[in-house]
Amino acid sequence: MKIYFAASIRGGGIDPETCRELLNHLRGYGRVFTEHICDEAADLDGDWGPDWDIYERDIRWLESADVVVAEVSLPSLGVGYEIGKAEEWGKPILCLYCTNSPRKLSAMINGNENLTVKKYGDLSEALVLIDDFLKHSPP
Amino acid sequence: MKIYFAASIRGGGIDPETCRELLNHLRGYGRVFTEHICDEAADLDGDWGPDWDIYERDIRWLESADVVVAEVSLPSLGVGYEIGKAEEWGKPILCLYCTNSPRKLSAMINGNENLTVKKYGDLSEALVLIDDFLKHSPP
Repeated sequence: MKIYFAASIRGGGIDPETCRELLNHLRGYGRVFTEHICDEAADLDGDWGPDWDIYERDIRWLESADVVVAEVSLPSLGVGYEIGKAEEWGKPILCLYCTNSPRKLSAMINGNENLTVKKYGDLSEALVLIDDFLKHSPP
Repeated sequence: MKIYFAASIRGGGIDPETCRELLNHLRGYGRVFTEHICDEAADLDGDWGPDWDIYERDIRWLESADVVVAEVSLPSLGVGYEIGKAEEWGKPILCLYCTNSPRKLSAMINGNENLTVKKYGDLSEALVLIDDFLKHSPP
């Protein structure tokens, strides 16, 4: 299974430890395209290449993914954009929102019945939600 | 001209005064669907209805818009989502980013050649960028 994992980087930056735990768990199901995401979230000032290269790489990965798993506890233009594109392309999308988030989840995500939106309290709950979702996703 | 104006609400909340100035300027070009946006950004705890109603209303407006103008200085899942959908639907999209923003703009926006991304220092520059864009947009 090819998985596109999306999380806030420049929009606030997912906690690197949470990011790595989610990423490692997803790896148990197949190839995760966006393995660099935890490093970028931990080092916003690093040299990650020109934005058009990042865009071209990520959009190709998104196109070829079987499923999308998005951490949506923090606001993010990139994650929202990727969810919108992936929905148009008919991909199954799991959105994970931590109930401890300081931000209320966008109505465009929370009110959208085309997405699977699940809320978790601690990380172990998030991992179970991933299991439930990926066990029922093709291929 | 039917204009969909998108800005961060729950993701951080665009400054209400900036929001109103942009909105008033856009009104000079036609109907702006999302007139409520400044009120919502100013009152995040207000009762704006269930999320699925907000989603259904906004997605219908987005579908019927001729152009999209998005303020992207703050991170926002909703704004990112709307840009992704509108791009898929072939709509002209202007993204306005304030150079005073505390956040670096997402590579999925800044590196995307399908969007018109423009940077402004003060509000008067943003209004000129809107004029330049809308004068060349159909209908």
